[in-house]
Amino acid sequence: MFKFKIKHSDKKTLARTGIFKTPHGEIKTPAFMPVGTKATVKTLSPQDLENLGTQIILANTYHLFLRPGEKIIKHGGGLHKWMNWKGPILTDSGGFQVFSLAREKGFTKNKDFKIKVKIDENGVEFSSFLDGSKHYLTPEKATKIQHDLGADIIMAFDECAPANSSKKYLKEAMERTHNWATRCKKEHEKLSKKQKHKQALFPIVQGGLYKDLRTESAKFINDLDLPGNAIGGLSVGESRKEMLKTIEIIIPHLDPKKPRYLMGVGTPEDLFECVERGIDMFDCVHPTRMARHGAFWTEKGRFSIKNNKFKKDNKPLQPKCRCETCRNYSRSYLRHLIFENEILGLRLMTIHNLHFLLNLMSQIRQHIEKGTFTKFKKSFLKKFH
Amino acid sequence: MFKFKIKHSDKKTLARTGIFKTPHGEIKTPAFMPVGTKATVKTLSPQDLENLGTQIILANTYHLFLRPGEKIIKHGGGLHKWMNWKGPILTDSGGFQVFSLAREKGFTKNKDFKIKVKIDENGVEFSSFLDGSKHYLTPEKATKIQHDLGADIIMAFDECAPANSSKKYLKEAMERTHNWATRCKKEHEKLSKKQKHKQALFPIVQGGLYKDLRTESAKFINDLDLPGNAIGGLSVGESRKEMLKTIEIIIPHLDPKKPRYLMGVGTPEDLFECVERGIDMFDCVHPTRMARHGAFWTEKGRFSIKNNKFKKDNKPLQPKCRCETCRNYSRSYLRHLIFENEILGLRLMTIHNLHFLLNLMSQIRQHIEKGTFTKFKKSFLKKFH
Repeated sequence: MFKFKIKHSDKKTLARTGIFKTPHGEIKTPAFMPVGTKATVKTLSPQDLENLGTQIILANTYHLFLRPGEKIIKHGGGLHKWMNWKGPILTDSGGFQVFSLAREKGFTKNKDFKIKVKIDENGVEFSSFLDGSKHYLTPEKATKIQHDLGADIIMAFDECAPANSSKKYLKEAMERTHNWATRCKKEHEKLSKKQKHKQALFPIVQGGLYKDLRTESAKFINDLDLPGNAIGGLSVGESRKEMLKTIEIIIPHLDPKKPRYLMGVGTPEDLFECVERGIDMFDCVHPTRMARHGAFWTEKGRFSIKNNKFKKDNKPLQPKCRCETCRNYSRSYLRHLIFENEILGLRLMTIHNLHFLLNLMSQIRQHIEKGTFTKFKKSFLKKFH
Repeated sequence: MFKFKIKHSDKKTLARTGIFKTPHGEIKTPAFMPVGTKATVKTLSPQDLENLGTQIILANTYHLFLRPGEKIIKHGGGLHKWMNWKGPILTDSGGFQVFSLAREKGFTKNKDFKIKVKIDENGVEFSSFLDGSKHYLTPEKATKIQHDLGADIIMAFDECAPANSSKKYLKEAMERTHNWATRCKKEHEKLSKKQKHKQALFPIVQGGLYKDLRTESAKFINDLDLPGNAIGGLSVGESRKEMLKTIEIIIPHLDPKKPRYLMGVGTPEDLFECVERGIDMFDCVHPTRMARHGAFWTEKGRFSIKNNKFKKDNKPLQPKCRCETCRNYSRSYLRHLIFENEILGLRLMTIHNLHFLLNLMSQIRQHIEKGTFTKFKKSFLKKFH
């Protein structure tokens, strides 16, 4: 289980295709994972996801821990059974949300809560974004929660320091992340002995945009020798150039025989650039979130269905697209649904955007295997702007 | 086209089964029509509706006239093509909303608009519940809009006077309704000559709760000799007893060879009582609206999924139910989705409630044909409370 087999490596770049085996099925890489924060990819049913060719979805430990609580999900047979998704699932550790929701003060409707975090070497005390209640998470607890949830891939508990932190602080946070990753590994190994279902733990590289920190972190994380490695703390406000440069620093230190997961990244442009630099797995709320705002992709770029020009437009969102939305509905009807806040509209836009991204990923895999990845990237990005 | 064939008449009651032919398929009666106010049955796709065995849906002329406007829908090929629903559609005339939205001042978020209606013999001036803009509807215009929308069954423009109106006013409103129905028929016949698609016009009986007015109205409406007849102005605040008494007054005056449609009615109890009194068609927002509030039906009555007792309940909403929701999801998961305002939850609850009501209607038809309708009604209502 959790074997990663590289199928084809691009000759000119670090792009490669592979297959990652999990207890709930194989994942063809590079892969994009739709985000199902609260154990549902917003607006879609598991059947919709299957129809879209979704290989693996992500769920958020932070949200599920706070509500309904991991015990209820465990009692329901674990995440797969509870939410009726038969394919692989990855849960993050909660670390990212603990820190990012504390910073995004405008995130919650309950602006009265002071969402603070108190960090010590042992763990993090934080107040819930839902009701301000106090909670304490440690590497051990985050690992235990993820064992209860039962995803195929679980993540080590890390500290994702703000992008504008001092180098001194970033180094401290990185060292804590390493220390916590070691503890997660230990706890994971202990818990794994007692349970039937198998899970793979991925640790996370941190270190901001500093070459020395990222190098140190990549080496440390790689040495933990877990089934896959992740890169965190990117796509948090830095430029794309900075992000790509940082990836280039990290990749040489991560075992090429293991999948590399870049957390929280997923625009079409990003997929090309990061696949080219050796990334195998991605997740991002972008395609689903932008859909709910009425935005959609075609091969020509991003558009808003709210635009007046679509009022009487009987064409599908993207001519020739084979998704359920484009096969059955016009821009005129979709525009009406989005303007009226009709739920069907949110679902149909989500279906199109996920189809677009998953289909793009599938094409990327095909082109890597045919040896035409660079050419495909060039021709795609020329039209897409 | 629009032939109504009675298949079986119950021996003890006025219940009967029949088949009503429309250009988009046959409707087995008695039939329940889910409401798709803005050309979408809230939360569901046409595929969902088909999976549920939906025979016919309803759409609201008032809402579609105001936004996006009937011309956009006509340009999109008419309602069926535009919303991708291949089965029969019925549109109301807009009359009910013109009056009811004027009364429900709390309905709109824009409480600043004074939603008034000015009625004269020619038609109604009203302000939009959306933006306060002024509009004028006449029987001719309501008919023309419905021709542009292109539903299989269209309704005459009527005045639905408030339940607490004086008898004098109810009589005036009824006479206007008769006058308008005559004009709708004339306009409908004129417009029908010019168009390819066939539509059936149903006129509406009014007259409040007064026996003499309802008798007079039923006779007048019946004499228009259109393919079906409807009963309006009920289920607007009166008791069930009053409603049923009024139906009993009307039914003897409506041609038994034509379908009888009771507008806006649709709880399980109502279906039994009204089928028993000779009603063939129903529509109601109740099953879909209550679903979005987390309420659901089982054979034992109505429940709320928000109840604490369902927190760790891994059973389906209704054990043995064959709907998509009950086959795949637990009360525990559905409760989580509803609490989190997740769209999938709204859709899954809607699927169950519509399945419950459509399946009940199907069972009612079967029992009428087996001659066991009264027995079935008794046993169902004994459990359901």
